[in-house]
Amino acid sequence: MSDLSFAAINKQLSLSRRMFLGSSLAAATLPAVARAQEAAPIGNLEPRQLPARSLPVPTTVSKELQAVIAAPYAPEWNALPEDSAAWKDLAAKSAESAAPAIAAIREHFGLTVEKTTMAGVPVFVITPKEIAPRNRDRLLVHVHGGGYVLFPGEAGAGEGMMMAGHGKFKVVSIDYRMAPDFPYPAALDDVMAVWRVLMAAYDPRKMAIFGTSAGGALTLCATLRAKAEGLALPGAIGPGSPLADLTWSGDTIMANAFVDNALVSRRSWATGASAIYAGERDLRDPMLSPIFGDFSGFPPAILTSGTRDLFLSDTVRTHRKLRQADVVAELQVFEGQSHAQYLTPSLPESEEAFAEIAKFFETHLAS
Amino acid sequence: MSDLSFAAINKQLSLSRRMFLGSSLAAATLPAVARAQEAAPIGNLEPRQLPARSLPVPTTVSKELQAVIAAPYAPEWNALPEDSAAWKDLAAKSAESAAPAIAAIREHFGLTVEKTTMAGVPVFVITPKEIAPRNRDRLLVHVHGGGYVLFPGEAGAGEGMMMAGHGKFKVVSIDYRMAPDFPYPAALDDVMAVWRVLMAAYDPRKMAIFGTSAGGALTLCATLRAKAEGLALPGAIGPGSPLADLTWSGDTIMANAFVDNALVSRRSWATGASAIYAGERDLRDPMLSPIFGDFSGFPPAILTSGTRDLFLSDTVRTHRKLRQADVVAELQVFEGQSHAQYLTPSLPESEEAFAEIAKFFETHLAS
Repeated sequence: MSDLSFAAINKQLSLSRRMFLGSSLAAATLPAVARAQEAAPIGNLEPRQLPARSLPVPTTVSKELQAVIAAPYAPEWNALPEDSAAWKDLAAKSAESAAPAIAAIREHFGLTVEKTTMAGVPVFVITPKEIAPRNRDRLLVHVHGGGYVLFPGEAGAGEGMMMAGHGKFKVVSIDYRMAPDFPYPAALDDVMAVWRVLMAAYDPRKMAIFGTSAGGALTLCATLRAKAEGLALPGAIGPGSPLADLTWSGDTIMANAFVDNALVSRRSWATGASAIYAGERDLRDPMLSPIFGDFSGFPPAILTSGTRDLFLSDTVRTHRKLRQADVVAELQVFEGQSHAQYLTPSLPESEEAFAEIAKFFETHLAS
Repeated sequence: MSDLSFAAINKQLSLSRRMFLGSSLAAATLPAVARAQEAAPIGNLEPRQLPARSLPVPTTVSKELQAVIAAPYAPEWNALPEDSAAWKDLAAKSAESAAPAIAAIREHFGLTVEKTTMAGVPVFVITPKEIAPRNRDRLLVHVHGGGYVLFPGEAGAGEGMMMAGHGKFKVVSIDYRMAPDFPYPAALDDVMAVWRVLMAAYDPRKMAIFGTSAGGALTLCATLRAKAEGLALPGAIGPGSPLADLTWSGDTIMANAFVDNALVSRRSWATGASAIYAGERDLRDPMLSPIFGDFSGFPPAILTSGTRDLFLSDTVRTHRKLRQADVVAELQVFEGQSHAQYLTPSLPESEEAFAEIAKFFETHLAS
């Protein structure tokens, strides 16, 4: 690890990491966590030395987004829970802290949210007050983010609710099983099980799958797996800022470190969480890191990121790889936004992001 | 200026700046230069303090691009010529240093390059060995970059040659008048004069205008001006990493400072050069900073940038603003690239960038 910038954080984390290594979490997953957080993507060439800097809040975004950009790093950004119970505490905390926003979104749009199951998998069926006539036979399938660990229950459905509200689509949001209790392939199995139910009931060409971060990766992985299993593909997909590369090799993982105030750096809880999801598997397996998959034959895709996003690279690498496979793929990158900040309710920029994704689905889904 | 990171550079530049202030260059342009280089885009909110960091060369790009990314800052990156003669020396130096690459591109593609004039404006007419049948009646108009000061003569035509070679299009590259002798609106006047000649000879819907950096800004400004003057618009445009905002307010101007090894920071020669082009004019004039213009009615546009580009923000802001005006607009962002590095000959990624732009023009130009 020749990256000087992490020295202070390394020191800060060293105690908790030692405790972590001695924790009750399945020992098999530990090397994967260490590997993901330690192995900087360094080639043979000399790194660039960047000076310490002061980065102002840009004036080129809405006042609302300026406030989001000015916010300090989340206190838990580099949390590294010591055992399964502590990971689940963090998940419960994420659900609790999301609850007020979830309620506000549901109320703001006057959404009906029904909890049910499909093939035994819990889902939320989200119906807006009014479904646009052109979208009456269409359905969007939402896969939430949170590093395969956070946002259980309705807390995960916020993005799906915003899409239902802004886009006037019916949305099914999947409350898939998560690590540490259920590592790979549980989450993907649940998404596929719901997809099988839905493709029997709806025209797959009239359905899109979308989601952000781990949800963006699951969107890509589900499409890869449907292709591998000879299932019908959705008519369009919307992978937002996808956690597409569990080797954490994208350039902006390093270039936007400490610039992004959402994930902050590869020392994020998300690195540990996704490593626990992956366990001892090869991190280059396309079912874990879809950037290493074959995107040929994919349906039209719209990708979303921000200029400060730690996953900007993984978003644009996914976009380029889709285009190389001759897939219709559109990229939108928002000024000044860190990871997944287009999901912040009530930003003018989030309304714009959802409007674009909705318009893309309306253009590309069969009518 | 509360940006600590620039303290060292400030000190380094202070002598040459004092000399500059006492130079023979028209005094009227000096406040504009000072304004552009000094006024950081700082709002009321607290800036983020970034630690010093070591940024590795990413392994997620071609070996050829890795070498480009690993290169040190250009020795002249923060040159601030003291008078008109020194600016012209810098321009001559830019032409001289570009010459070998220009010759190599011409030879590699077997291009015919004919120097002529249109409405008195010198142009290079670039004809590839073979013009794709679908492009026989089509013509691309190239406007080069270089901060309105650099790359006079054939040195400016390299991007046009790469497009002719990769895309199998006929290209007219405009050798417009430049600062310091010819500030705004000379360059734009020349582009418009050539456009008037060409639109009388060709179907405008079968022509595209494209260019990078200052050439990207001129592409946008020429389209704004054609709209304002009631002239026919081109069928498509390709503004690459446009210098779209002479107030230098985009977030990546600061976020990618010292990350970008091409422009490096707003202390770049380009800031001084473009300020001399602008003179005492309002930098928010859309004919100088097209980001402040009205893009409604624009033809389909393809925009190109890189994750390390100082102008990534200006590229994505232009993209968003085009989309807000309901213009067909595609964005491509290349992993790890600094400003305009997709123009580097013989990168696999540059071939990919030109192939995308060519495909976009083929899709959107009238046939």
